[in-house]
Amino acid sequence: MRNVAVIGCGHSKFCFNSPLTSVELMSEVAFDAMNEAGIKPKDIQATYIGNVLGDFEEGQGMVQSFFANDIGAFNVASSRFEGACASGSMAIRDAYMWVASGYYDIVLAGGVERATAFSSALGTRTFAMFGDGHYEFPSGFTFPSVFALLAHLYSDKYGIPLPQLKEQMAAVSVQAHKWGMKNPKAQFHKEISSEDVLKSFMVASPIQLHDACPFTDGAACVIIASEDAVKKLGIKKPVWFKGIGQASSGKLSSQYKFLPRLRARELASQQSYSMSGLTPKDIDVCELHDCFSIASIIAAEGLGFFDYGTAGEAWVKGDCDMGGKIPINLSGGLKSKGHPIGATGGSQCVEITRQLRGEMVSEDRQVAGAKIGMMDTLGGDGVLVNMIFSNEK
Amino acid sequence: MRNVAVIGCGHSKFCFNSPLTSVELMSEVAFDAMNEAGIKPKDIQATYIGNVLGDFEEGQGMVQSFFANDIGAFNVASSRFEGACASGSMAIRDAYMWVASGYYDIVLAGGVERATAFSSALGTRTFAMFGDGHYEFPSGFTFPSVFALLAHLYSDKYGIPLPQLKEQMAAVSVQAHKWGMKNPKAQFHKEISSEDVLKSFMVASPIQLHDACPFTDGAACVIIASEDAVKKLGIKKPVWFKGIGQASSGKLSSQYKFLPRLRARELASQQSYSMSGLTPKDIDVCELHDCFSIASIIAAEGLGFFDYGTAGEAWVKGDCDMGGKIPINLSGGLKSKGHPIGATGGSQCVEITRQLRGEMVSEDRQVAGAKIGMMDTLGGDGVLVNMIFSNEK
Repeated sequence: MRNVAVIGCGHSKFCFNSPLTSVELMSEVAFDAMNEAGIKPKDIQATYIGNVLGDFEEGQGMVQSFFANDIGAFNVASSRFEGACASGSMAIRDAYMWVASGYYDIVLAGGVERATAFSSALGTRTFAMFGDGHYEFPSGFTFPSVFALLAHLYSDKYGIPLPQLKEQMAAVSVQAHKWGMKNPKAQFHKEISSEDVLKSFMVASPIQLHDACPFTDGAACVIIASEDAVKKLGIKKPVWFKGIGQASSGKLSSQYKFLPRLRARELASQQSYSMSGLTPKDIDVCELHDCFSIASIIAAEGLGFFDYGTAGEAWVKGDCDMGGKIPINLSGGLKSKGHPIGATGGSQCVEITRQLRGEMVSEDRQVAGAKIGMMDTLGGDGVLVNMIFSNEK
Repeated sequence: MRNVAVIGCGHSKFCFNSPLTSVELMSEVAFDAMNEAGIKPKDIQATYIGNVLGDFEEGQGMVQSFFANDIGAFNVASSRFEGACASGSMAIRDAYMWVASGYYDIVLAGGVERATAFSSALGTRTFAMFGDGHYEFPSGFTFPSVFALLAHLYSDKYGIPLPQLKEQMAAVSVQAHKWGMKNPKAQFHKEISSEDVLKSFMVASPIQLHDACPFTDGAACVIIASEDAVKKLGIKKPVWFKGIGQASSGKLSSQYKFLPRLRARELASQQSYSMSGLTPKDIDVCELHDCFSIASIIAAEGLGFFDYGTAGEAWVKGDCDMGGKIPINLSGGLKSKGHPIGATGGSQCVEITRQLRGEMVSEDRQVAGAKIGMMDTLGGDGVLVNMIFSNEK
């Protein structure tokens, strides 16, 4: 298969109550990404878009076709992907294959979501459809309670008393907000303390408000191109796909043997590492799926950065911070940057691309000399997508 | 790219009010397809599933992951596609690429929908989200009215007086029900006359009840494999992908220059013909998207089977029937077989596969000696997918 690179990025401000429709949000970031890549709408041969709640939120399905034609990429092949929070990453991984195989040379991939017009109760209920809708949701398994369960299992399995685990979880959120302060696209620009986290209201014990990411409106996308197109366009800083992985799980109750680990993540990251010939030690910077603080801890272990039961302590010690063993979520992560569901994968990909281009200096969040980056997205109970990128071919 | 074939089919009974959930429906047809192919769940490396209204209808997103794990295809990559009625075809085309590229050897693709628990008003309103939701739906553009508009434009453009066009449209529906009688999986087993069509109640003039397909519950899927896998498994009658095409359009108002033709179909079919090196004259049997009788007429022209303005007369003369120039929708089509939105592409692919295997003799609807077949699916205002298959490599 051919070498494939990210050659342009677009990322909207993440916010509450965007005045734009999904089609408009997606169009805006598409123009930004095309401008960065130095291409025109007619150069785009296909679009791959993650979007989850467009029909519920604004009565609009098929965003992928309407935005493509609105920006002037007329009549291109346009597909929408749904894998809950991993929808955007799923779309990007799929787009990679259509270029790697030689079928297309230049495509656009990413995602968009308007998720804040819901009341939080409706949002939680609606989003719970991306767990098992027949048995588990009626038993109370909305996502806050799923991650509350995982936190209890984690505490028990690794012998970390809940008060200690909660302090570790708080460290994750505190770090996220610290970096969100520096990200101009972030939804929140507000530092929080460990005390703020531990005093915030209880959502589903032990998950408190500041252990949970918000819902967000936003869009993010990348332009993906073949090596030939990279050369033709004279792209100065292409960021190359090195490894891709995707796996899924069944309903939560079918995963009991592996919980609180998420088996699909371990398999997906094995695919990414194996394809790239890289190991966790090679990763210079990572954006991972911190929908809840405990989710970050589980993710960092599943990706192989830390031994099981030790990632929480790693956050406390600064091992996941700038200068640490593996800098994680220097964007602010879902917790502070925000979580526009279908757009989150696109946002992670944009963040990693910009880190590997060395563009974060001006925002004071550049990992010096970062060459290899990883993104990781969890969708509902079921889907895990991760990818490894490098600024060297 | 590698040669890729369909090696197994699964097709549920299409019906009203299925007692099964989407996950259960999908699991059932997956087992049928695996049995046909002689493979086990562990052989499936990925699933590609079209599903549109699962969240609205039964509060279940991410059907693709849950069914895969329920059937024992644990932790495989599972993606859901949405392109309105073309979702299943989009999924199959995408699955083709992952095998053709060499990444996977055996995957499952198709779709599922439960669309009949809606009242027809809610169904029409909900499905209208797959047109433009902000400007055109509030102006009354649900899909019956979109196709009513196309019928008026067609009548005007080609100088066919509306009463004459309505008789041609009636011929499409009559033929569909004639063949639906012979298809054991069809939702309707009821012959209708031209008079029945023209006396049926008016939905959106000139579209009457019998010019419109129903909503349906059902699932359909295929197993897709590389040439190596076909050999290893000793598949006796593989059906090979020869050409694929996909294109999309913007909102209806942006298409005014081309209406009543659908530009995306013409582009998608050019892709399919060009890739396969075939022409419309080479096609022995076709399943096309007859969501409304006028849609069939427009589709048969867009695929190149007839000159513009002449396809309605072709149906009247029997040119689209068994023994005619191009036998179309010998399954009963969406009109009589039914239209489970996300599953329709899978159903078309199963029908073409079985025709090219010569398996329709027992149902008295085999096109004798059929070697090359085409499927064509229209999704909302926006997406067109078609594919050409052959029983010769």
